[in-house]
Formats: sequence, structure tokens, C-alpha cells
Amino acid sequence: MLKYQKIARELEKYIEDNAMVRGDKLPILDDLMKEFEVSKSTITKALEILEVKGTIYQVRGSGIFVRGHNRKGYINLLSNQGFRQSLKDFEVSSELLEMAVTMPTKEAATNLSIDMDEEVYYVKRLRRIQGQRLCVEESYFKKSIVTYLNEQIVSESIFDYITEALNVNIGFSDIFFHVGKLNKKEAGYLGLKQDDPALYKESIYHLVNGEAFDFSRIVYSYQQSQFYIQANNYLP
Amino acid sequence: MLKYQKIARELEKYIEDNAMVRGDKLPILDDLMKEFEVSKSTITKALEILEVKGTIYQVRGSGIFVRGHNRKGYINLLSNQGFRQSLKDFEVSSELLEMAVTMPTKEAATNLSIDMDEEVYYVKRLRRIQGQRLCVEESYFKKSIVTYLNEQIVSESIFDYITEALNVNIGFSDIFFHVGKLNKKEAGYLGLKQDDPALYKESIYHLVNGEAFDFSRIVYSYQQSQFYIQANNYLP
Repeated sequence: MLKYQKIARELEKYIEDNAMVRGDKLPILDDLMKEFEVSKSTITKALEILEVKGTIYQVRGSGIFVRGHNRKGYINLLSNQGFRQSLKDFEVSSELLEMAVTMPTKEAATNLSIDMDEEVYYVKRLRRIQGQRLCVEESYFKKSIVTYLNEQIVSESIFDYITEALNVNIGFSDIFFHVGKLNKKEAGYLGLKQDDPALYKESIYHLVNGEAFDFSRIVYSYQQSQFYIQANNYLP
Repeated sequence: MLKYQKIARELEKYIEDNAMVRGDKLPILDDLMKEFEVSKSTITKALEILEVKGTIYQVRGSGIFVRGHNRKGYINLLSNQGFRQSLKDFEVSSELLEMAVTMPTKEAATNLSIDMDEEVYYVKRLRRIQGQRLCVEESYFKKSIVTYLNEQIVSESIFDYITEALNVNIGFSDIFFHVGKLNKKEAGYLGLKQDDPALYKESIYHLVNGEAFDFSRIVYSYQQSQFYIQANNYLP
């Protein structure tokens, strides 16, 4: 994990520990530098991350304020760390349905910009929230980047593992989604009826250097899924 | 519009005019400063906006690259400018169903953090894409901020009008959504059947100082709606 990412996490903890809510003002830059014992560029970069993430907003000439999120039980759709962070008040579990080192499907190869004969880790999981079925997720990880996975890792947080153990620096992600009707197989996994509504979400995760390394496809049950996004910096 | 926002727009035009695609490298900072005749802080802030927006990505020690979006016909869910920008290759139209200066509903008042007796502009529109019904949108604008609207403005881009004519600086937005089944009235507007799938999206738009000024609620037809988001700065 890079230093400014570590400080961003500590700033989040600071906001939480001090029970700060929307509109609360953070200490000025100089005081934050002293508090966290870092340079101005590190604290600035950490604050940028939190601004992008929607944790804070900065008002020129006025200060840095807590933005926070404000609807309980909503999932942060942009949170690459999956469910753990945005649903920490809920019991979330993963059931491994399938895991294999294999060749990518055509769709996965296209989205990862790799050849059809490049090895990937394929992981299929059923996620539950408070015991209820939330979604079915299929992921394809480039094996050249995500060199090793096992049952225990994929039942916990794959992203925690690859950032911490494999020291992979994750950059940006492209997310695509649409609403549709469940087919019979999907409905079976989610305990719903065929043709019930569902959210289909595809994500492509990239390293900081722009290389795609993870393509995932998730089908969410309409009964358990509420999402939020905190968007920034309106561009006219 | 602020200067760095103007430069961000010009940079987007530069990328488009030069037909740049994902992975293409932009000129270095010094050359961009000369090209656009602005200070380093202005160009840096403009690049930050484009990074947040997913137009570019920056690789430390390597340069600034075009990120671009890559699926045709998808709507940028985070684009506050509505549909005009992300669907510019499509024919999008708005049919005004209702417009009034009125008191907010309880839901709108809560989301805008205003009293029940503070006046709002209420605007209800049906949006079409290529002649097909895309969504029904209801918006509540604080009249103290959006002081004037008329039929022509709301049939074009309300956001263009309030940033350009009213000189309002739009900051961040909170977006909430879930998947559900259409009720009879919604189905009627969208030309679908009751219980068909739909995406329900609520947005709260804020000024740069953090004040909420627009609450909108959109029901999307599942047949026309495909969305994309370009997320940034993964935080482990």
C-alpha cells in the first residue's frame, strides 16, 4: 500500500473515531500534517483520494468538510473493495461455487485485452447479506498479476489479499451495468423467479499503470440491492 | 464557469479533435501549459477533473494517458450534465409533463434539507432516446438558487442554463439507486407493463459550498438503459 493510501485510511478512521458527520470541519492542513506526521504532498494526495471517494469535500478559502454517506444499508457501487467496507454493519458472507485456473472466455479475454490462451483464475461466488442471497459473482483474474489464490482467500477479501500480500497497486475501474430479467439458472442461484428484475454489473479493474487485471460480472437480486455513489467535481 | 473547468472542457475537445483513444499519451505538463496558455495550477486542477471524470489517467513518472470510455450507447451515470454529453451520438429529447413553483414534498424537503414551506421549482419530464421512452424524471430545485426556469429551458439542458446564465457553481452529487418493479402509472409513462423491471435513481446535487439545491428522482425503462461509470483511485 502506498503511503498516501495508508494516510487516507487513517484519516477515515480519524473521522469515524471522532464521530464526524456531514458538514463537520476537519483541522487545517498544517494541523493534519502534524497530526499524521507526513509531508504536505502526502496529506494533499490522501485528501484527494477521500474527495474522490466522497468522504470529504473541500471548499476553497473555507476548509475541508466531512461529506460522509447517509443512507444505511446502501452498497457503495464504486467501492472496489467490494462489500466489506460499505456494509460493515451487516453480516456478509461468500460461498465459493467454483474456482479454477483456466483459459478466459471470449468476453473475459476481450475485456482484459489478453489472448485466449493466457491463463486466468476463474472464481464464482454467491454472496449473502444478513443470510439473504445478494448476488452471484464471476471473476477472471489475469494469472500473471494475481499469481496465487486459494479457497480461504476467495472466501475472504480477494482485493485485500492482492494489495497486501501480492503488493499489487490497483488504479481505476470501468463499470457497466444494466437492468434485465433473470434467466432460469440465475434465478435458481438467487432464490428468485425467472424474469424477476436484476441488476447486471460488469467491472474491469486496472493497475495504476493502466493494465486491466480483473474482469467481473455480477448479477444482483433486486430484493437485497440498494446502491449509492458519491460523485465529485461537476464539469459543466 | 471557473477557469480550470473551462480548460478541462478544452482538454476534452483536444482529445476528441486529435481522435485520441485509450492508452494514447498526452503532451507533458509544460507543453500543455503553453498550448492552453495557463498556469501550472490551472492545468493541474483541470487534469484532476478529467481524472475524476475518467477521461484520463496519470501514471507517476510516466505521463498522462487517455482513458476514454469504450462502450457505445451507454449512459454515464455520474455525468451531472445529464444525457447530452454521454449520448451525443444519439437523438435525445425531453417532453415536459409538468412544471410549477410549489412547496416540496416531504421526501424532497428532507433530501434538500429545507423546510416544507420553502418554494421549489418542480419539473417532471419524459425523456426519449432515438424516439424510444428512456425515463421519467421528477426534479425539485431550490428556488433560492435556481431563481427562474421556463418551458424552453427545461426542454433543453437545465444544468447548462443554471451554470451559464445563473452562474451557479455545481459541486458534488449523492446518487442512490435500486432495481424494482414498475407500478401501473410508471409503466404507462414508459410504455411498459406493470411489474416490468426498472432502475430507480435518486440524485442530490450540491453547490461547491456543500449546499443541496436539486433533488431528482428518475425511473428508467429497462429496455433502453445501459450505464457506465469510470471509477478512480482505488483505496485499499
